[in-house]
Amino acid sequence: MSDVPETVRRIRSGDPRTLARTISRIDDGDPSVAQVLRALHTHTGRAHVIGVTGPPGSGKSTLVDKFVGEFRRRGLSVGVLAVDPSSPFTGGAILGDRIRMQSHALDEGVYIRSLATRGHLGGLSGAVMEAVRVLDAAGFDRILIETVGVGQSEVDIVRLADTVVLVSVPGLGDDIQVLKAGIMEIGDVFVVNKSDRDGADRVVREIRSMLETALVNGVTPRALSGAGVADRGGHHIASAARESANAHGYGDAHGLPPVLKTTAETGEGVMPVVDAVEAHRAALEESGLLRERRLRNAAYELRDALGKRLLARLDSPDALARLDALARDVVERRRDVYDAVDALHEALSLEEKHPRR
Amino acid sequence: MSDVPETVRRIRSGDPRTLARTISRIDDGDPSVAQVLRALHTHTGRAHVIGVTGPPGSGKSTLVDKFVGEFRRRGLSVGVLAVDPSSPFTGGAILGDRIRMQSHALDEGVYIRSLATRGHLGGLSGAVMEAVRVLDAAGFDRILIETVGVGQSEVDIVRLADTVVLVSVPGLGDDIQVLKAGIMEIGDVFVVNKSDRDGADRVVREIRSMLETALVNGVTPRALSGAGVADRGGHHIASAARESANAHGYGDAHGLPPVLKTTAETGEGVMPVVDAVEAHRAALEESGLLRERRLRNAAYELRDALGKRLLARLDSPDALARLDALARDVVERRRDVYDAVDALHEALSLEEKHPRR
Repeated sequence: MSDVPETVRRIRSGDPRTLARTISRIDDGDPSVAQVLRALHTHTGRAHVIGVTGPPGSGKSTLVDKFVGEFRRRGLSVGVLAVDPSSPFTGGAILGDRIRMQSHALDEGVYIRSLATRGHLGGLSGAVMEAVRVLDAAGFDRILIETVGVGQSEVDIVRLADTVVLVSVPGLGDDIQVLKAGIMEIGDVFVVNKSDRDGADRVVREIRSMLETALVNGVTPRALSGAGVADRGGHHIASAARESANAHGYGDAHGLPPVLKTTAETGEGVMPVVDAVEAHRAALEESGLLRERRLRNAAYELRDALGKRLLARLDSPDALARLDALARDVVERRRDVYDAVDALHEALSLEEKHPRR
Repeated sequence: MSDVPETVRRIRSGDPRTLARTISRIDDGDPSVAQVLRALHTHTGRAHVIGVTGPPGSGKSTLVDKFVGEFRRRGLSVGVLAVDPSSPFTGGAILGDRIRMQSHALDEGVYIRSLATRGHLGGLSGAVMEAVRVLDAAGFDRILIETVGVGQSEVDIVRLADTVVLVSVPGLGDDIQVLKAGIMEIGDVFVVNKSDRDGADRVVREIRSMLETALVNGVTPRALSGAGVADRGGHHIASAARESANAHGYGDAHGLPPVLKTTAETGEGVMPVVDAVEAHRAALEESGLLRERRLRNAAYELRDALGKRLLARLDSPDALARLDALARDVVERRRDVYDAVDALHEALSLEEKHPRR
């Protein structure tokens, strides 16, 4: 446990038990795992990190399973992190995923792992990123992050990937709109799964039309920006990126990301999706966008980790007692929230200036 | 705009334009709205805040629409906040909701509003809570918060409610498991919507069995705890709560929350759900759990707001430049993430000790 060099050696050799134990330590928030992660850092950055997200019922897990098969056929090793956002409290993992993934159970080139989401603010995406680094250092060529849902925390997670596959499905009803509103900035490759169902072509058309509208309105697709988010800069590189994207067969002439149909159950359409993912990566690399995107991701991760670190000040018994007292003041209308936060901020800053430990 | 007492007066009189403008200011992160919220604080705390959540396609919006109708029939005014978690980047609102809600458009006792989710860490639930306070001060008897999805940020939001309605639906496939893993701690009233579909009874049975298993394993249902989360304390009050819950006709003799079937389209089963929500509130109030729960919610909100405040230190140009430089170090493997966070933390703490402004 405490033998860091030996643990690092085993991780780098891809030993499944050491990988499992290390990721469990990350998942449990064990602070001692930091030493291992620090030592791994120089051995990371090689893997292609692919996020796969979409609403419940869109068949993501089956699709991921098929992606794994296709990558294996191409001679690439694959790590899978299935993030279960359902249980911030109980921390359960999705057994179903594991069962479904049994087809790869005896393949040494595949490692599959569920992650619970125990952390609060900043905890989850931080933990996912650390687990990605472990698999990266272990030498997996492709790392798939599967998340359920389209909530903000899931968006935060996929934002940590080099390439994001956004899975949609016919027949989800009006709520499908939810999926569409922000897709331009989220997805690099769009997949309409269960495309044997009625309405698949309509969903494809709707997504295309959303993407076109966004493009007309001057929104840079995530696929052509380093950021993956519409924040500072990055837009100037869009045209260079479009050229190299076209050279690699990713996207269309207008820079619109591909929208592809699949039937994960039968494997139909899976190969073109994997082609698109690979083409996206090649285009990212050639255009310099991969580096841009990783810079943004690192900045995002640092911000996240800093938030976690700063809030850890609340974990002392003294700070918790102060928090409870202030909460009482707010509920009893003696203070408003702003007052209370001021007081809390003040108290914690003072604590930092006169540390007791 | 800058006339705070006048704005407060208009909000308290329920003026729809002032409500809309104030909530927009909250949604946009306009800091000047703080003055208004502070002035409103003593006028809040009266409304019953009800969270409604569930996966995309479960028909939540239609259900919320029917809840509004039923509350109105009972002579209660209703505010609705539809939280759209899809677009942290573009900030779009769900047009569909608004269209569907048109049946209440001319009713002064109803106010409906979509909220985008622009904020980062801690931003979203903070903004929702502020909007709830505005509607609370405006005198709405019931405030419904509708969120799509079951991701962590949505869980965080419903956690701010007095009563949480968790909506499920038959036929979502294996991903429905996601919904089940943590439900015991999330829901107070469970609804299986679209119950005219095949498999509705099976979903009801599955939820009941999940709840029973959790109870046997010593998990206190959210419905009987002040916390709504399995954190510090609160469990001792479960038995008193169960008694008053039974007296009010909420839940069964074992303290299990109700699991009810609805068909939102026709309105079937809506009335018993509203009854259960009202019974839950009455039981919460009588048992003292309402206060407990609000204390927890306030503590949670303060923690949230503090995180936001602390991270705001990153917003200066100097701090951003430092963040970018450190991100570059991480990507180029000159520093690991831990080193970089240490350096960032150090830099920000120093800045605080020697403020430039």
